[in-house]
Amino acid sequence: MPGTCTLALDAMGGDHGPAVVIPGAALSLERHAQTRFMFFGDAARIEAELDKHPALKAQSSVVHTSTAISMDDKPSQALRRGKGSSMWLALEAVQKGQAQAAISAGNTGALMAIARLVLRPMTDIERPAIAAIWPTVKRSCIVLDVGANIGASARQLADFALMGAAMARALFHIERPSVALLNVGVEEIKGVEEVRQAHAWLKEMGAELPIDYRGFMEGHQIGEGHVDVVVVEGFAGNIALKTAEGTARQVGAYLKSAMMQSWLSRAGALLARGGFNVLRQKMDPRHSNGAPFLGLNGIAIKSHGGTDAIGFASAIDVGYEMAESGLVARLAADLDTFHGRLAAPGPQLSSG
Amino acid sequence: MPGTCTLALDAMGGDHGPAVVIPGAALSLERHAQTRFMFFGDAARIEAELDKHPALKAQSSVVHTSTAISMDDKPSQALRRGKGSSMWLALEAVQKGQAQAAISAGNTGALMAIARLVLRPMTDIERPAIAAIWPTVKRSCIVLDVGANIGASARQLADFALMGAAMARALFHIERPSVALLNVGVEEIKGVEEVRQAHAWLKEMGAELPIDYRGFMEGHQIGEGHVDVVVVEGFAGNIALKTAEGTARQVGAYLKSAMMQSWLSRAGALLARGGFNVLRQKMDPRHSNGAPFLGLNGIAIKSHGGTDAIGFASAIDVGYEMAESGLVARLAADLDTFHGRLAAPGPQLSSG
Repeated sequence: MPGTCTLALDAMGGDHGPAVVIPGAALSLERHAQTRFMFFGDAARIEAELDKHPALKAQSSVVHTSTAISMDDKPSQALRRGKGSSMWLALEAVQKGQAQAAISAGNTGALMAIARLVLRPMTDIERPAIAAIWPTVKRSCIVLDVGANIGASARQLADFALMGAAMARALFHIERPSVALLNVGVEEIKGVEEVRQAHAWLKEMGAELPIDYRGFMEGHQIGEGHVDVVVVEGFAGNIALKTAEGTARQVGAYLKSAMMQSWLSRAGALLARGGFNVLRQKMDPRHSNGAPFLGLNGIAIKSHGGTDAIGFASAIDVGYEMAESGLVARLAADLDTFHGRLAAPGPQLSSG
Repeated sequence: MPGTCTLALDAMGGDHGPAVVIPGAALSLERHAQTRFMFFGDAARIEAELDKHPALKAQSSVVHTSTAISMDDKPSQALRRGKGSSMWLALEAVQKGQAQAAISAGNTGALMAIARLVLRPMTDIERPAIAAIWPTVKRSCIVLDVGANIGASARQLADFALMGAAMARALFHIERPSVALLNVGVEEIKGVEEVRQAHAWLKEMGAELPIDYRGFMEGHQIGEGHVDVVVVEGFAGNIALKTAEGTARQVGAYLKSAMMQSWLSRAGALLARGGFNVLRQKMDPRHSNGAPFLGLNGIAIKSHGGTDAIGFASAIDVGYEMAESGLVARLAADLDTFHGRLAAPGPQLSSG
């Protein structure tokens, strides 16, 4: 039944804890009125916030814990000391089937380590990927991996394609998302064997897989929005994501200083403030918040640690859409098909 | 004697050949009045353009060849058929000491292949790197490698640091350029051993090397302009560069559409057009044109193929500054020092 899912929220994660998590949930509830929430953390602080949002409170339960993972905890420390923490309990609620997705603004390394331990990777998946929602001049697209892995084998890259497609299906409601592999265009380059091999497999098996494979793409094309999913190894993917964020801020700074350079341009900017508000909206990173870990037996969403209620609500929405779409079961089946096909006897798949 | 260098120009490279190369040289000559130029290519077309620029003509010589590398030639084809082409002859002029730098807007793969063959890599350098001039909110910085190599060993990354510093010294006239290594910040990541090893070496040997090593940096910090040189392996570097270009265009498109959304913002934008012109200037990619190959026994500069005279003049300026600075001899000595130190007996350098 659509809209009745339960979401497990780490109320203590991020820079602001319950003061952002609870208002964020209230905002998301306005968009998905049937959602139920489980909040994990300091019950007194959570209840105090919930009292300000009666509609949310009516659909929420609170699980108290006095343990919380700090933003500085290393993954190893989080694994050692984190049992029973708000983050851990939220993930456990998903593992036990009490909730369909966990959302946390806690630290990425700890969340990844605990999510892997509690939810476990899907069959034949060694490490999950982290996916980002990337705004483009058209609809947003999904880029993965943005930093869960360093380096990726051809099979991992092809797995990422299926993972990203599952997420695109959930968020954009397209049955057969388009997918491209990020590559470099400098012609003399011989390398990136993994990317070439993944390309060959996706091209050959495209018809059997639930994706519309479009081949290679270069970095400047991501923002053009030609495809739903862009696949890249995690080191380059993380650098691309951060570089794009930095460049957007840099152009914003240029714009601001250019508008201040004469009284005429200051007056023009004042007159055009409606337009600048549209621009600010369009570039607001809060609307792209919510990075899922893909390839686990359950849904875990990482929110930016410093975001506000509007941003946290976006991350909750991502969890909601993914839970509603039945992503986990479908993705597991797609990965099985692909891995089975790779291992199958009969006409050999090309290599390279 | 400053200002008397000779530059070898491939007049047939790029989308427009002599129609851009010669006016570009004329523009650059206005800034460096003592420069001499050698033009390689179709003499009739070159002379026709030179006739429009008498001051340039007076300081130029023309070497005719009817062979030119096309923009589609593969590196292997260029090596096989390119001998005697305008690109090849320009590089040969540098190798023979007739010119101090070669500039071409021809295709990257061919230029790299021929430059390696004609100029030869410096001792112990396997492949040169390609460096990009990256605009920041402060002064521009230099980012390398942006695509000449896929993957890089720790030693190559440290070599890139010295190469980038040599270029920063030439362009920005700073004796001890600041250098950072691009890395990802996700904490749980174990990998990037090469980056960690390069980091350890640069930290330990920083005082002996002509650089101010600043440690790791993330993608969003490139545009903040905190350092003069950013070092990254070529696959991620190429993707970062292209992604930044794409993001700048994307924000430009957002801005345009935001300003069109009401008559009020259209009027404001009209009033502020002086400011928008400043912005356009600031974001003009022609001012960052000119990507040197570093690590060869001679200076070779790659210009964008599609640029105009203003852009090509920027690439010539880069070649001029690098030639004037005596970059090649100095860089060769710096690399020798570093490689010698790595191989030296005595107190061991740490690994990892």
